[in-house]
Amino acid sequence: MLNDLKQQVLEANLALPRHHLVTFTWGNVSAIDRQTGLMVIKPSGVEYALMTCDDMVVVELESGNVVEGNKKPSSDSDTHRALYLEFEAVGGIVHTHSRHATIWAQAGQDIPAWGTTHADYFYGDIPCTRTMRDEEIAGRYEWETGRVIVETFHERRLDPASMPAVLVHSHGPFTWGKDADNAVHNAVVLEEIAYMGIFSRQLTPGLENMQQTLLDKHYLRKHGKNAYYGQ
Amino acid sequence: MLNDLKQQVLEANLALPRHHLVTFTWGNVSAIDRQTGLMVIKPSGVEYALMTCDDMVVVELESGNVVEGNKKPSSDSDTHRALYLEFEAVGGIVHTHSRHATIWAQAGQDIPAWGTTHADYFYGDIPCTRTMRDEEIAGRYEWETGRVIVETFHERRLDPASMPAVLVHSHGPFTWGKDADNAVHNAVVLEEIAYMGIFSRQLTPGLENMQQTLLDKHYLRKHGKNAYYGQ
Amino acid sequence: MLNDLKQQVLEANLALPRHHLVTFTWGNVSAIDRQTGLMVIKPSGVEYALMTCDDMVVVELESGNVVEGNKKPSSDSDTHRALYLEFEAVGGIVHTHSRHATIWAQAGQDIPAWGTTHADYFYGDIPCTRTMRDEEIAGRYEWETGRVIVETFHERRLDPASMPAVLVHSHGPFTWGKDADNAVHNAVVLEEIAYMGIFSRQLTPGLENMQQTLLDKHYLRKHGKNAYYGQ
Amino acid sequence: MLNDLKQQVLEANLALPRHHLVTFTWGNVSAIDRQTGLMVIKPSGVEYALMTCDDMVVVELESGNVVEGNKKPSSDSDTHRALYLEFEAVGGIVHTHSRHATIWAQAGQDIPAWGTTHADYFYGDIPCTRTMRDEEIAGRYEWETGRVIVETFHERRLDPASMPAVLVHSHGPFTWGKDADNAVHNAVVLEEIAYMGIFSRQLTPGLENMQQTLLDKHYLRKHGKNAYYGQ
Repeated sequence: MLNDLKQQVLEANLALPRHHLVTFTWGNVSAIDRQTGLMVIKPSGVEYALMTCDDMVVVELESGNVVEGNKKPSSDSDTHRALYLEFEAVGGIVHTHSRHATIWAQAGQDIPAWGTTHADYFYGDIPCTRTMRDEEIAGRYEWETGRVIVETFHERRLDPASMPAVLVHSHGPFTWGKDADNAVHNAVVLEEIAYMGIFSRQLTPGLENMQQTLLDKHYLRKHGKNAYYGQ
Repeated sequence: MLNDLKQQVLEANLALPRHHLVTFTWGNVSAIDRQTGLMVIKPSGVEYALMTCDDMVVVELESGNVVEGNKKPSSDSDTHRALYLEFEAVGGIVHTHSRHATIWAQAGQDIPAWGTTHADYFYGDIPCTRTMRDEEIAGRYEWETGRVIVETFHERRLDPASMPAVLVHSHGPFTWGKDADNAVHNAVVLEEIAYMGIFSRQLTPGLENMQQTLLDKHYLRKHGKNAYYGQ
Repeated sequence: MLNDLKQQVLEANLALPRHHLVTFTWGNVSAIDRQTGLMVIKPSGVEYALMTCDDMVVVELESGNVVEGNKKPSSDSDTHRALYLEFEAVGGIVHTHSRHATIWAQAGQDIPAWGTTHADYFYGDIPCTRTMRDEEIAGRYEWETGRVIVETFHERRLDPASMPAVLVHSHGPFTWGKDADNAVHNAVVLEEIAYMGIFSRQLTPGLENMQQTLLDKHYLRKHGKNAYYGQ
Repeated sequence: MLNDLKQQVLEANLALPRHHLVTFTWGNVSAIDRQTGLMVIKPSGVEYALMTCDDMVVVELESGNVVEGNKKPSSDSDTHRALYLEFEAVGGIVHTHSRHATIWAQAGQDIPAWGTTHADYFYGDIPCTRTMRDEEIAGRYEWETGRVIVETFHERRLDPASMPAVLVHSHGPFTWGKDADNAVHNAVVLEEIAYMGIFSRQLTPGLENMQQTLLDKHYLRKHGKNAYYGQ
């Protein structure tokens, strides 16, 4: 069942430690099969070095029920579901506690668009959510985490297709993309940007955002119908 | 004698350089056999690459006497003893000079609970001890180091089971856990948290602690009878 | 056609990930054959691990026309051309988004000459360009990027031979040299200097430039007719 | 001639890139044979990966004359000579541009004794020299660099045996020890301390030195006749 997707999700998960985005069993990648409404996700608390294709868990998007797999899905499974249900163009999602993106999340701040590295992938400031309310934390916490992300995108009128990342306040980053591999790619770039942002502002306190024209230029030369980067 | 425990302690020691927590012969791991009251600990000043199971030293917890081994135990042996004697649920202890935890120790500050990475492992701020008194330093220094840690936990009413780390002022971190491997695990996480904390506060000077409700949620979803993380 | 030069350009490109200067397909190296007026450059968006000599693209310096190659040249190709056309002693050019040089570019600041590591390679402050104008960004953007670099050198009366690096504002570094390998060498050194500069100024806010006599001494013991470093 | 010493010097040089203390051909290690008054030192500008025992250069300590070797000695050779002539207990010397020690040198500041990692190896603040005078730079620059180090130790009444490191202002660190290997060891530790110092002071601006009693305790438990660390 969904063997190709499981393989993609496995490989995307294994890419996390290779890119130094995770420690121990932290982090998780999922992907969605929109036709069947099934999500494939990493099992909870399993070591990356020992993970196999058969460990991947198949979860029904609507209900959250596990429909295949011997293991419990990632504890963040409901956050992924909440995002897939709302962000229809998204095919894969990544969650990590990668050091520098997490630093911005802990600091409770958006990452401003300060350069073309940022503009090549993220069309504006990378948003940090509000803190979660006590009743959200006490309730269906992981689901509510996803809902707070969705709220952030709605309130700021952000398009998940051109802003494939978010920082959850006091927690860490989620990224997404057209598939699991693309979501990992965005997680790597987010970490680069997060690192550079910390020290860009240290060098120039009060640093202003890059010009909108330059942001447009770089984002649009890599994305959309007039893109001309790559083969 | 205690061959399984020696093997565990050896492997835990070898994990320190693999996790980039130590330089040269710095750092040490021990474990305790509560039934016999014997502690197994790394020898003093031996290179990790050359260390074998037979190099591990067996020390009597109460007396501090070496009861087996050809080598001198770690110079920090008495600190380990002082902790095992007081913290009865602890099965393994690690000491390192890992860079970022040591930075907080040198700065003489607690590491505030600033995010879920922290809350997943440490149930509150990670305490830094007071500076040691001249008579403590001049006396049984290593033993007194352990006693200052114990004092810190008593005065702040901290439970070593839910706070498996401490920073010794002007020195560096000790971590512990149910066994040697778990203590190393906590040493790795402490280093991650210590790194992220430095730059979280750089981004947001005056950064406040995370919400207590979120701290509770994350600590308790991984620890205690209602935990649901992992398999 | 130009097989030796293609091999040099390939090897110089492969050196970028080895020196941790690039992520994914970012960055590019070119070299020029002055006799034929042909430039060899990395293809756009191709993975370093899969790149071969045949992937290198041959571009006519004057016209920008591709005269050989199955792939599109780097999207930054016109920036390279603008530099070769103006800086006649330059034989190879490198562009990266290496972390710390990019941080200075994002911060919009020159890197002051603060030590002999700097002085050994760069004869003065490493300049950061002005921000680009909207019409430059909307027009022939990559060509104009090169022209802004040239303008910076003209206005500040800098000699590209003794100042083989520039930071493009809100973007990242370009370096160059007598050939592709030398340009990569300078990119590595720039990244070292950029890293050290951030924290030198953190330690000593308001840090002044090094003495001119020491800058002269170090630059000239490695460069020019009285150099005495090396064999 | 001096084959054992050459081998030691070669191996100590090769340890520099392994410990990430040098880039390209930067850095150099020497050792002295006090009986013959001959110094063995790395050749100038030779790649570490290609270096052999035969490349090591033998230099007469008093005269600076090369007495054996096919290559030119390190351009810093006269700095090493000036130190050996004055610091009679020193058997090996290392010069690097290691990142964090160089940052302190560029910032023109001593590294304060802020923790036991420091106290285990360096008996007090690590001194930074004054800036060099124009006539020193214009004159026998490398020799004068050594003389400024010696002046710093004389003026501050420092003992090179208990303070095996110095920062040359606007330049970088020199370390030494009883032999070449020990000097490299101290270079590694210096880099650790330099890193931790930057961020210790960032966390606690105005951070005071550690207690003298703790500095004494740690230095003296590893050094001198009452040392009890190691086997």
